[in-house]
Amino acid sequence: MGDGRPRVIVVGAGFAGLSAVKRLGRARADIDIVVFDRHNYNTFQPLLYQVATAGLDAGDVGHHIRGIIRPYPNAELLVETVEQVDPDAKKVVLGTGATMSYDALVIAAGARTNYYGVPGAAAHALPLYTLPDAIRLRNHILADFEAAEAEPSLVAEGALTFVVVGGGPTGVEMAGTTSELFRNVMGNDFRRIDPTKAHIVLLEMTDHLLGGFRTRSQRHALEELEARGVDVKLGARVTSIERDRVTLASGEVIRTRTVIWAAGVQASDIADTTFPRTRGGRIVVNADLSVPGHPEVFVAGDLAAATDRHGNLLPQIARPAIEEGRHAARQVLRRLHNEPTKPFVYRDPGTMAAIGRRAAVADLPLGITLTGGIAWLAWLGLHLIELMGGMRRRTEVLVRWAWDYLRWEWGPLLILTPAPDPDLPESEQEPEPGAP
Amino acid sequence: MGDGRPRVIVVGAGFAGLSAVKRLGRARADIDIVVFDRHNYNTFQPLLYQVATAGLDAGDVGHHIRGIIRPYPNAELLVETVEQVDPDAKKVVLGTGATMSYDALVIAAGARTNYYGVPGAAAHALPLYTLPDAIRLRNHILADFEAAEAEPSLVAEGALTFVVVGGGPTGVEMAGTTSELFRNVMGNDFRRIDPTKAHIVLLEMTDHLLGGFRTRSQRHALEELEARGVDVKLGARVTSIERDRVTLASGEVIRTRTVIWAAGVQASDIADTTFPRTRGGRIVVNADLSVPGHPEVFVAGDLAAATDRHGNLLPQIARPAIEEGRHAARQVLRRLHNEPTKPFVYRDPGTMAAIGRRAAVADLPLGITLTGGIAWLAWLGLHLIELMGGMRRRTEVLVRWAWDYLRWEWGPLLILTPAPDPDLPESEQEPEPGAP
Repeated sequence: MGDGRPRVIVVGAGFAGLSAVKRLGRARADIDIVVFDRHNYNTFQPLLYQVATAGLDAGDVGHHIRGIIRPYPNAELLVETVEQVDPDAKKVVLGTGATMSYDALVIAAGARTNYYGVPGAAAHALPLYTLPDAIRLRNHILADFEAAEAEPSLVAEGALTFVVVGGGPTGVEMAGTTSELFRNVMGNDFRRIDPTKAHIVLLEMTDHLLGGFRTRSQRHALEELEARGVDVKLGARVTSIERDRVTLASGEVIRTRTVIWAAGVQASDIADTTFPRTRGGRIVVNADLSVPGHPEVFVAGDLAAATDRHGNLLPQIARPAIEEGRHAARQVLRRLHNEPTKPFVYRDPGTMAAIGRRAAVADLPLGITLTGGIAWLAWLGLHLIELMGGMRRRTEVLVRWAWDYLRWEWGPLLILTPAPDPDLPESEQEPEPGAP
Repeated sequence: MGDGRPRVIVVGAGFAGLSAVKRLGRARADIDIVVFDRHNYNTFQPLLYQVATAGLDAGDVGHHIRGIIRPYPNAELLVETVEQVDPDAKKVVLGTGATMSYDALVIAAGARTNYYGVPGAAAHALPLYTLPDAIRLRNHILADFEAAEAEPSLVAEGALTFVVVGGGPTGVEMAGTTSELFRNVMGNDFRRIDPTKAHIVLLEMTDHLLGGFRTRSQRHALEELEARGVDVKLGARVTSIERDRVTLASGEVIRTRTVIWAAGVQASDIADTTFPRTRGGRIVVNADLSVPGHPEVFVAGDLAAATDRHGNLLPQIARPAIEEGRHAARQVLRRLHNEPTKPFVYRDPGTMAAIGRRAAVADLPLGITLTGGIAWLAWLGLHLIELMGGMRRRTEVLVRWAWDYLRWEWGPLLILTPAPDPDLPESEQEPEPGAP
């Protein structure tokens, strides 16, 4: 610090940010790396739906950031929020009001839930984007069953009706897995209500699930969800959400106490202040992922408007984020060594979505489409090797989980909320929009 | 329900309550069993301190009650609070105002933290009696380190000073394990502060630790804690706790932001209303654990003023609670069959306390006292076989934990608070006394 070594600041310790920090740390360069995150953990978002459906514990998908950066003595984590970037002064402004200057900056602040202005959505729908979201959703779903068991008349008021908004991978995964949870795991656990009769509704605005996937995968997802008893409504647009109901554009009203919001994300706040951005708030970047006019500022992950070779925006998922973070780090090193930067090229390895046990779809390169059990094994293998690779304990968790899953042994079905801490900073308390 | 079968109500699904439910369920008698608990999980309290010190995940020590009672088709759980018992009308009054009548009742509502009227304790000290307590404590301790790393001047204000009040087993376990956490696990994870220099103070009012243990065990605990750098203050009485300090009767002031309250428990509220009770609020019971004047009402666990053969009150720990619950269930069955009840006889198998890795004390029968590594193995064996026995997944968790512990591999160091849920009942939100 302050000894003349260049300082590289990384904002955000998600897939993109940590990928950048690891690449910078491995270079063993004569630089200081400072990564900011509001949490002390990184979230393995592709398995968040498993936390929400009580298949995995929160600690199974949260990785302690200090443990991840431990091998890099020139990297440090500060658990603080970055409110703003001042690219002309080459400074970040923290939530405390303090500033920190940088020689190079990687912005990887990610995204947040997008409610698209639907009335009542921010106040009453439950998103699934962060780990606190996932725990709240699990508590809420399980508490619905407990309330209905104590007072079965609540079932008629929608206590056992669960509405998922959005037919993308998250929505499909939630709908398929909650169905399995209710039918195969919780089915025998209640005396006064029948969880196998719980009603799961998946609302999708377009006329197909899994937009962006191949037609065969879309059809397979629909069939598998319907086979699991999910009531899939295509062409269904939500016009309002209230505490006890969802109203559709068709006029249909669904009584429910649980609306799971899986409809999409928007860029995080930090993008709003400074840089030109796309619709959806992603920051416009050059081919090398730097910001036009600010060659020392790079953007990676959900926040970057990076494109594939056809000029299409890359999806806001893990794989592009990891590669963008690594690329941004490499360009930072090149720039510090006064070398020219290189353009980012994304080679799509395909996309996958899980539907339930032994059911998934995988759109692979060369036109190969996998469905069913073989796709599920591919999905499992990808998460084991490609994404969780190198973390023994995590891999062990996933192996045990897969084994339990095959026998319908489920994990932590606890409704568990820690006591509130009056001394914790507001940022740790995760207030819900619209909550008191 | 309502078909003339006798109904047995069990209030509380802790060690005592679940032990009673299991005994009643196994009898396959022609009765209905209804167990009430405010949570849908049972807590394995002897390992709560491991959750608080990030050695185990919350799901590892919380057991899903519906899973436990699944083998007993005539037993059902209702997640509701019982506010009061009306023994003359043979009814319980629920938090909702509804009532339910019983033919026999087992009160096993447990205890709650006792602050002994110390000013500021209820508002500022962090207890360790429930699972939400443990998660809050972990979040709080880890957040202290993050705050100090972001702003090292906070160390002088006590940000890295941790005060444990109470030198019983819980206090000894917390002090010893936090020391190991700071020195052996977190030691290399920070750049600006040095966790190995964190200050742990254990305050005990009497002149010895582990009251009730043999002198050799008490001395061993003191030596082991001091070897781990814990500042043990005997004869130290707390007179007040403020947000940033603890004041002792001696006038000494310790600056700290974290006071861990391990000083003791008192009987839960339900005891306050109806029945004669001892100092400490435990319900006076007959030799068969029934309440004088109400032969169909039994009390088991922390709430029962059960005694050993010398007339001393039994300690409020797991083993007596389990045996009392089982005994109460047996007497309920005897009474329903019009047989005379039998007195409860407690055979003390000894008591243990863990101090840290490979360090524990065990006071066994026949005057045998174990200390050090052999006691630690005995402690581990007891928790594996005697208390967690029969739950494969839990046993697996503890085996893995012990193996990781021996190599200083630690678990979930996440500061993780679920987002608050506006729809969850108040009872799930666990408001802290004195919190807004």
